[in-house]
Amino acid sequence: MHKLLVLYPEPADRAAFKDYYVNTHLPLVAKLPGLRASRYSFGVEGTGSPYFAVFEGEFDDKATYVAAMSSPEGEAFAADVPNDAPPGVVIVEYPVESLAG
Amino acid sequence: MHKLLVLYPEPADRAAFKDYYVNTHLPLVAKLPGLRASRYSFGVEGTGSPYFAVFEGEFDDKATYVAAMSSPEGEAFAADVPNDAPPGVVIVEYPVESLAG
Repeated sequence: MHKLLVLYPEPADRAAFKDYYVNTHLPLVAKLPGLRASRYSFGVEGTGSPYFAVFEGEFDDKATYVAAMSSPEGEAFAADVPNDAPPGVVIVEYPVESLAG
Repeated sequence: MHKLLVLYPEPADRAAFKDYYVNTHLPLVAKLPGLRASRYSFGVEGTGSPYFAVFEGEFDDKATYVAAMSSPEGEAFAADVPNDAPPGVVIVEYPVESLAG
Protein backbone atom coordinates (compact mmCIF):
# COMPACT_ATOMS: atom_id res chain seq x y z
CA MET A 1 0.00 0.00 0.00
CA HIS A 2 1.10 3.57 -0.71
CA LYS A 3 -0.31 6.41 1.38
CA LEU A 4 -0.87 10.11 0.94
CA LEU A 5 -0.94 12.02 4.22
CA VAL A 6 -1.87 15.69 4.50
CA LEU A 7 -1.46 17.57 7.79
CA TYR A 8 -3.25 20.90 8.20
CA PRO A 9 -2.20 23.58 10.69
CA GLU A 10 -4.85 25.62 12.46
CA PRO A 11 -6.75 27.61 9.80
CA ALA A 12 -7.62 31.29 10.14
CA ASP A 13 -11.32 30.37 10.23
CA ARG A 14 -12.27 26.84 11.31
CA ALA A 15 -15.86 26.99 10.08
CA ALA A 16 -14.85 28.31 6.66
CA PHE A 17 -12.09 25.70 6.38
CA LYS A 18 -14.44 22.82 7.24
CA ASP A 19 -17.12 24.04 4.85
CA TYR A 20 -14.72 24.39 1.93
CA TYR A 21 -12.99 21.11 2.75
CA VAL A 22 -16.11 18.97 2.93
CA ASN A 23 -18.11 20.60 0.16
CA THR A 24 -15.44 21.48 -2.41
CA HIS A 25 -12.10 19.79 -1.74
CA LEU A 26 -13.17 16.28 -0.68
CA PRO A 27 -15.40 15.78 -3.74
CA LEU A 28 -12.30 16.43 -5.88
CA VAL A 29 -10.29 13.99 -3.77
CA ALA A 30 -12.96 11.31 -4.15
CA LYS A 31 -12.54 11.41 -7.94
CA LEU A 32 -8.85 10.43 -7.86
CA PRO A 33 -8.48 7.24 -9.91
CA GLY A 34 -7.12 4.32 -7.87
CA LEU A 35 -7.96 5.86 -4.51
CA ARG A 36 -8.84 2.72 -2.55
CA ALA A 37 -9.85 4.35 0.72
CA SER A 38 -9.58 7.70 2.46
CA ARG A 39 -10.19 9.19 5.89
CA TYR A 40 -9.99 12.57 7.52
CA SER A 41 -10.37 14.25 10.85
CA PHE A 42 -10.93 17.77 12.13
CA GLY A 43 -10.29 16.55 15.70
CA VAL A 44 -6.51 16.18 15.82
CA GLU A 45 -5.24 16.38 19.40
CA GLY A 46 -1.87 16.05 21.03
CA THR A 47 0.46 17.87 23.39
CA GLY A 48 1.79 20.78 21.39
CA SER A 49 0.24 19.38 18.19
CA PRO A 50 0.99 21.70 15.28
CA TYR A 51 -1.97 20.27 13.35
CA PHE A 52 -5.72 20.78 13.35
CA ALA A 53 -6.86 18.39 10.63
CA VAL A 54 -5.51 15.37 8.77
CA PHE A 55 -6.27 13.51 5.55
CA GLU A 56 -5.18 9.97 4.63
CA GLY A 57 -5.52 8.43 1.19
CA GLU A 58 -4.66 4.84 0.29
CA PHE A 59 -3.46 3.57 -3.08
CA ASP A 60 -2.36 0.07 -4.07
CA ASP A 61 1.19 1.16 -4.82
CA LYS A 62 3.35 4.13 -5.74
CA ALA A 63 2.72 3.71 -9.48
CA THR A 64 -1.04 4.00 -8.89
CA TYR A 65 -0.48 7.10 -6.76
CA VAL A 66 1.72 8.74 -9.38
CA ALA A 67 -0.79 7.91 -12.12
CA ALA A 68 -3.62 9.38 -10.03
CA MET A 69 -1.73 12.62 -9.48
CA SER A 70 -0.90 12.86 -13.19
CA SER A 71 -4.50 12.29 -14.29
CA PRO A 72 -6.93 15.12 -15.12
CA GLU A 73 -8.64 14.44 -11.78
CA GLY A 74 -5.26 14.71 -10.03
CA GLU A 75 -4.55 18.01 -11.74
CA ALA A 76 -7.95 19.36 -10.65
CA PHE A 77 -7.22 18.20 -7.10
CA ALA A 78 -3.75 19.77 -7.09
CA ALA A 79 -5.10 23.04 -8.47
CA ASP A 80 -7.50 23.24 -5.52
CA VAL A 81 -4.91 22.58 -2.81
CA PRO A 82 -3.87 26.25 -2.48
CA ASN A 83 -7.54 27.21 -1.99
CA ASP A 84 -7.93 24.64 0.74
CA ALA A 85 -4.68 24.60 2.67
CA PRO A 86 -3.51 27.03 5.35
CA PRO A 87 0.15 28.10 5.20
CA GLY A 88 2.35 25.39 6.67
CA VAL A 89 0.38 22.45 5.29
CA VAL A 90 2.48 19.27 5.12
CA ILE A 91 1.88 16.82 2.25
CA VAL A 92 3.82 13.55 2.34
CA GLU A 93 3.52 10.10 0.79
CA TYR A 94 5.03 6.76 1.76
CA PRO A 95 5.00 3.03 1.13
CA VAL A 96 3.46 1.23 4.11
CA GLU A 97 4.76 -1.66 6.19
CA SER A 98 2.00 -3.44 8.11
CA LEU A 99 2.33 -5.03 11.52
CA ALA A 100 0.06 -7.64 12.99
CA GLY A 101 -2.66 -5.70 14.81
CA MET B 1 -12.12 4.49 14.61
CA HIS B 2 -9.55 6.40 16.67
CA LYS B 3 -6.02 6.78 15.37
CA LEU B 4 -2.61 7.38 16.85
CA LEU B 5 -0.18 9.04 14.44
CA VAL B 6 3.51 9.53 15.17
CA LEU B 7 5.70 11.60 12.83
CA TYR B 8 9.47 11.26 13.16
CA PRO B 9 11.95 13.89 11.98
CA GLU B 10 15.23 12.80 10.45
CA PRO B 11 17.21 10.92 13.13
CA ALA B 12 20.90 11.48 13.82
CA ASP B 13 21.63 7.93 12.63
CA ARG B 14 19.13 6.26 10.28
CA ALA B 15 20.48 2.75 10.68
CA ALA B 16 20.49 2.97 14.48
CA PHE B 17 16.98 4.44 14.49
CA LYS B 18 15.59 1.69 12.26
CA ASP B 19 17.27 -1.05 14.26
CA TYR B 20 15.95 0.24 17.59
CA TYR B 21 12.51 0.93 16.15
CA VAL B 22 11.95 -2.49 14.60
CA ASN B 23 13.62 -4.61 17.24
CA THR B 24 12.75 -2.79 20.47
CA HIS B 25 10.01 -0.20 20.04
CA LEU B 26 7.58 -1.97 17.68
CA PRO B 27 7.41 -5.11 19.86
CA LEU B 28 6.25 -2.86 22.72
CA VAL B 29 3.70 -1.20 20.42
CA ALA B 30 2.34 -4.58 19.31
CA LYS B 31 1.46 -5.41 22.94
CA LEU B 32 -0.93 -2.45 23.35
CA PRO B 33 -4.35 -3.85 24.28
CA GLY B 34 -7.04 -2.95 21.74
CA LEU B 35 -4.61 -2.09 18.94
CA ARG B 36 -6.59 -3.28 15.94
CA ALA B 37 -4.03 -2.56 13.24
CA SER B 38 -0.80 -0.64 12.79
CA ARG B 39 1.49 0.45 10.00
CA TYR B 40 4.75 2.28 9.62
CA SER B 41 7.11 3.61 7.02
CA PHE B 42 10.74 4.71 6.86
CA GLY B 43 10.15 6.03 3.35
CA VAL B 44 8.29 9.29 3.93
CA GLU B 45 8.71 11.64 0.96
CA GLY B 46 7.38 15.05 0.08
CA THR B 47 8.53 18.47 -1.00
CA GLY B 48 10.13 19.96 2.09
CA SER B 49 8.85 17.10 4.23
CA PRO B 50 9.96 17.58 7.82
CA TYR B 51 9.50 13.86 8.52
CA PHE B 52 11.51 10.71 7.85
CA ALA B 53 9.26 8.03 9.34
CA VAL B 54 5.64 7.60 10.35
CA PHE B 55 3.63 5.25 12.55
CA GLU B 56 -0.15 4.73 12.48
CA GLY B 57 -2.11 2.79 15.08
CA GLU B 58 -5.83 2.05 14.92
CA PHE B 59 -8.19 1.59 17.87
CA ASP B 60 -11.96 1.07 17.87
CA ASP B 61 -12.63 4.34 19.70
CA LYS B 62 -11.08 6.93 21.98
CA ALA B 63 -12.00 5.02 25.15
CA THR B 64 -10.08 1.99 23.88
CA TYR B 65 -7.10 4.21 23.03
CA VAL B 66 -7.12 5.85 26.46
CA ALA B 67 -7.41 2.45 28.17
CA ALA B 68 -4.49 1.13 26.11
CA MET B 69 -2.28 4.06 27.07
CA SER B 70 -3.21 3.66 30.75
CA SER B 71 -2.46 -0.06 30.80
CA PRO B 72 0.88 -1.54 31.96
CA GLU B 73 1.68 -2.19 28.29
CA GLY B 74 0.90 1.45 27.50
CA GLU B 75 3.17 2.64 30.28
CA ALA B 76 5.99 0.43 28.99
CA PHE B 77 5.44 1.84 25.50
CA ALA B 78 5.40 5.45 26.74
CA ALA B 79 8.55 4.90 28.78
CA ASP B 80 10.35 3.80 25.63
CA VAL B 81 9.27 6.75 23.46
CA PRO B 82 12.15 9.00 24.58
CA ASN B 83 14.63 6.23 23.66
CA ASP B 84 13.12 5.92 20.23
CA ALA B 85 12.14 9.42 19.16
CA PRO B 86 14.41 12.14 17.75
CA PRO B 87 13.80 15.70 19.01
CA GLY B 88 10.80 17.22 17.28
CA VAL B 89 8.72 14.04 17.14
CA VAL B 90 4.99 14.78 16.72
CA ILE B 91 2.47 12.50 18.44
CA VAL B 92 -1.21 13.14 17.70
CA GLU B 93 -4.48 11.23 17.96
CA TYR B 94 -7.84 11.75 16.29
CA PRO B 95 -11.27 10.28 15.63
CA VAL B 96 -11.60 9.28 11.98
CA GLU B 97 -14.23 10.14 9.40
CA SER B 98 -14.21 7.72 6.46
CA LEU B 99 -15.02 8.56 2.88
CA ALA B 100 -15.99 6.14 0.19
CA GLY B 101 -12.73 5.17 -1.49
